[in-house]
Amino acid sequence: MEKLEKIYQGKAKKLYTTDDPDVLWVEYTDQATAGNGAKKAQIAGKGELNNHITSVMFRLLAARGIPSHFIRQISATEQLDRRMAMFPLEIVMRNTAAGSFARRYGVEEGKELSKPVLEFFYKSDPLDDPFINEDDIEALGLAGRDQLDIIEAKTREIGKALTSIFDSIGIRLVDFKIEMGTTSDGTILLADEITPDTCRLWDKASGKGEVEHMDKDLFRRDLGNIIPAYQDVLDRLRTLEAGRPAEA
Amino acid sequence: MEKLEKIYQGKAKKLYTTDDPDVLWVEYTDQATAGNGAKKAQIAGKGELNNHITSVMFRLLAARGIPSHFIRQISATEQLDRRMAMFPLEIVMRNTAAGSFARRYGVEEGKELSKPVLEFFYKSDPLDDPFINEDDIEALGLAGRDQLDIIEAKTREIGKALTSIFDSIGIRLVDFKIEMGTTSDGTILLADEITPDTCRLWDKASGKGEVEHMDKDLFRRDLGNIIPAYQDVLDRLRTLEAGRPAEA
Ligand SMILES: Nc1ncnc2c1ncn2[C@@H]1O[C@H](COP(=O)(O)OP(=O)(O)O)[C@@H](O)[C@H]1O
Ligand SMILES: Nc1ncnc2c1ncn2[C@@H]1O[C@H](COP(=O)(O)OP(=O)(O)O)[C@@H](O)[C@H]1O
Ligand SMILES: [Mg+2]
Ligand SMILES: [Mg+2]
Repeated sequence: MEKLEKIYQGKAKKLYTTDDPDVLWVEYTDQATAGNGAKKAQIAGKGELNNHITSVMFRLLAARGIPSHFIRQISATEQLDRRMAMFPLEIVMRNTAAGSFARRYGVEEGKELSKPVLEFFYKSDPLDDPFINEDDIEALGLAGRDQLDIIEAKTREIGKALTSIFDSIGIRLVDFKIEMGTTSDGTILLADEITPDTCRLWDKASGKGEVEHMDKDLFRRDLGNIIPAYQDVLDRLRTLEAGRPAEA
Repeated sequence: MEKLEKIYQGKAKKLYTTDDPDVLWVEYTDQATAGNGAKKAQIAGKGELNNHITSVMFRLLAARGIPSHFIRQISATEQLDRRMAMFPLEIVMRNTAAGSFARRYGVEEGKELSKPVLEFFYKSDPLDDPFINEDDIEALGLAGRDQLDIIEAKTREIGKALTSIFDSIGIRLVDFKIEMGTTSDGTILLADEITPDTCRLWDKASGKGEVEHMDKDLFRRDLGNIIPAYQDVLDRLRTLEAGRPAEA
């Protein structure tokens, strides 16, 4: 596989074409951003950790029958993915009130929701990623009704798998953001990344009324260094993948 | 029917109990507000016009098989309505991009949508009426899944009727906001008001590229006096109700 031209430099990754038009060469960078780029920093080691973490995540999901764009990891900071036509949507699922949900509705962060809720945000930097509903998604032509039904069903399935994966390594999955796209034959597939940048992960060992954040909220809210937390997530995921109990 | 104690003073109406626990005495006031109360004014004659207009609207809907809380008009500014347990929701349907939709998604005002879109806003003054989706409505316990299905079906039916009513009197219905509640036996019913305060109404006689607003945007955007415009809406509705063509 040959790395050809850079086609996109995002907030966390660089995308390159390869000699196969269906394969993307993705490099995870050390850049951390929050508030849609309003806050920015270089954090040495983040790119490597996220590339490792998302690779394990996609393999664990595949082992549970959930396919994704992931092909294989090729270096500490790089992986090969299937190239997709992306929906310009952030697909958010929440088990627990936090972040913009807690703020928007005046709900206390940490309140368990009666069932997982699905939200969409329109991925648009100039518009600041506005909250959007399914009717509006259709009206703007961002996805069709049939596609939304598939996206919703897949997200609920992914949510169940992720919640159980994190639960088994002592982590409460508060919410997560995923992205999906379509392959050249129109199949809808999970893409992008699943990392502590895109999930809210709370250590289940947190004391009562305390939250040990293991995710990007450490950076967003200036709560501490993300690196040891992301490393801890990776270590637990590796233990799980190796088939040993996380406590061993 | 006897008017008893005032139970609510809203931004546009006062509600009183009556000697019948299922009947509300509603008085339309001259207060105009915009931006959830940020901008406020007294506009003499507005209460009377809106009371007349919404009374005609509810009768026209009833004649088309769509029931509402409306019982009867009892004075220039007052009417009797069935008392409901209200959903704390603003139910918005849009035929054309305008207002917060146009701003939120960067769409030009006046762009016809491929089909009517439904949006919900959580009626909460302290939260500033945030945009909300159906999953979130369920999670917050504002309405159940079955109720949302009924609300959606009713709103689409109401939207078709309103669009055709306004069309027949030379008015383009751009969007509208309604509210619903449940009667004591759990039936979901259209309530509140349908007036130029709650609909965007554009005169179809507007010149190309021009908009003759016949609604609260005149006040919101300081475009002119609302009274002659609201009076024009009422006159056309009365002509329609009297069974004569609006042009006669
Ligand atoms: N399999 C894929 N094919 C094409 N594009 C993808 C794929 N997976 C993710 N992307 C896109 O690549 C970009 C990833 O880079 P990132 O740094 O996260 O960008 P952003 O700042 O836009 O979030 C995103 O725009 C994402 O939608
Ligand atoms: N049939 C009804 N029964 C009970 N409450 C109603 C009914 N119709 C409307 N309402 C409520 O009465 C109030 C109407 O007054 P308004 O001045 O429009 O108030 P607001 O400032 O809250 O919009 C609203 O809160 C509305 O939800
Ligand atoms: Mg991204
Ligand atoms: Mg009102």
